[in-house]
Amino acid sequence: MKIIIVGATGTLGKAVSAELAKRHDIVKASLNKGDVKLDMTSFASIESMFKQVGKFDALICTAGAGHFGPFAEMKEEHFYTGIKSKLMGQINLVLAGRNFINDNGSFTLTSGILSEDPIRGGAGLSFINGAINSFTISAAIELPRGIRINAVSPGLVEDSAGMSPYFPGHVLVPMHKVVSAYVKSVEGGITGQGIRVY
Amino acid sequence: MKIIIVGATGTLGKAVSAELAKRHDIVKASLNKGDVKLDMTSFASIESMFKQVGKFDALICTAGAGHFGPFAEMKEEHFYTGIKSKLMGQINLVLAGRNFINDNGSFTLTSGILSEDPIRGGAGLSFINGAINSFTISAAIELPRGIRINAVSPGLVEDSAGMSPYFPGHVLVPMHKVVSAYVKSVEGGITGQGIRVY
Repeated sequence: MKIIIVGATGTLGKAVSAELAKRHDIVKASLNKGDVKLDMTSFASIESMFKQVGKFDALICTAGAGHFGPFAEMKEEHFYTGIKSKLMGQINLVLAGRNFINDNGSFTLTSGILSEDPIRGGAGLSFINGAINSFTISAAIELPRGIRINAVSPGLVEDSAGMSPYFPGHVLVPMHKVVSAYVKSVEGGITGQGIRVY
Repeated sequence: MKIIIVGATGTLGKAVSAELAKRHDIVKASLNKGDVKLDMTSFASIESMFKQVGKFDALICTAGAGHFGPFAEMKEEHFYTGIKSKLMGQINLVLAGRNFINDNGSFTLTSGILSEDPIRGGAGLSFINGAINSFTISAAIELPRGIRINAVSPGLVEDSAGMSPYFPGHVLVPMHKVVSAYVKSVEGGITGQGIRVY
């Protein structure tokens, strides 16, 4: 399969790329490095990335930002940080990518544990993760040509242990378990699933 | 209690207002009618509404739009219809309202069944409902002064039976059950809950 990995140079993206590269052709996409560059906050940039890459079989997105900070200090624009990046960035990857993806291809997005298990300072991410999970559920029933879509919802991964003080009591998730969820989505047959890894 | 009901002139808002008016002072807010007017897509309009109303004990929002139509025809801007209205409209009611709400007050937002039980044409609403549920979960743990927040997630209400053809197999929910969920959120003690009524 030809698999585009958006965020391939990040902590999670690197691990997912390494595993899938054993069996597939990987196109690494990110903001500044990789085989192709894209700014996921821009629909035009996303579309231009797909024109460069051409037809593909699977897209994984492990990228996307959101605001982190005390809810008491959050203003409207802090919510839009996540809306423009992790939320609409990922939705736009599907909207633009569906014109380039092969029959029976798949999209795998990334949400996260904060959708249902919140932490202080996480309001700018929780609502994005919930939105991605529900978007996946709804898009799955309308995608044509056997195209599938899932979201991987990881807990705090062991490689991000430095963030543990912000996640009191959260049990670190082994990276290989998170990688397996992306493999399941791409190589397996499921669709419309929020794959919890925690 | 002094309760602001945003969307008080809609199908759901009317029923909720009628029940709560038996025991509380209701301030009806909506776009064109009611005691106070507001455009929930504008933060300035929301803030001006609160300045007019002053201190209050509970806010209920039963208003908010999102795009309905085939996913295949949806573009980025169709997703922003819901983001600007039902999503950020409700979040902005909390962001602005928290400066006016009394100690131990409550916010009650509205999500909906499409967050987890999708229908064709509903992608523009599913992701908003999921976002509202997760926003509620996260905001609840950071709101100060005993302030609570919940989301009511109704199925298709019997008063909207005309929409049944778009919701094949969905069992209509009696209006009194949906009204009870708002009563539970306002008069009860729960917080951070997505109250499913289906």
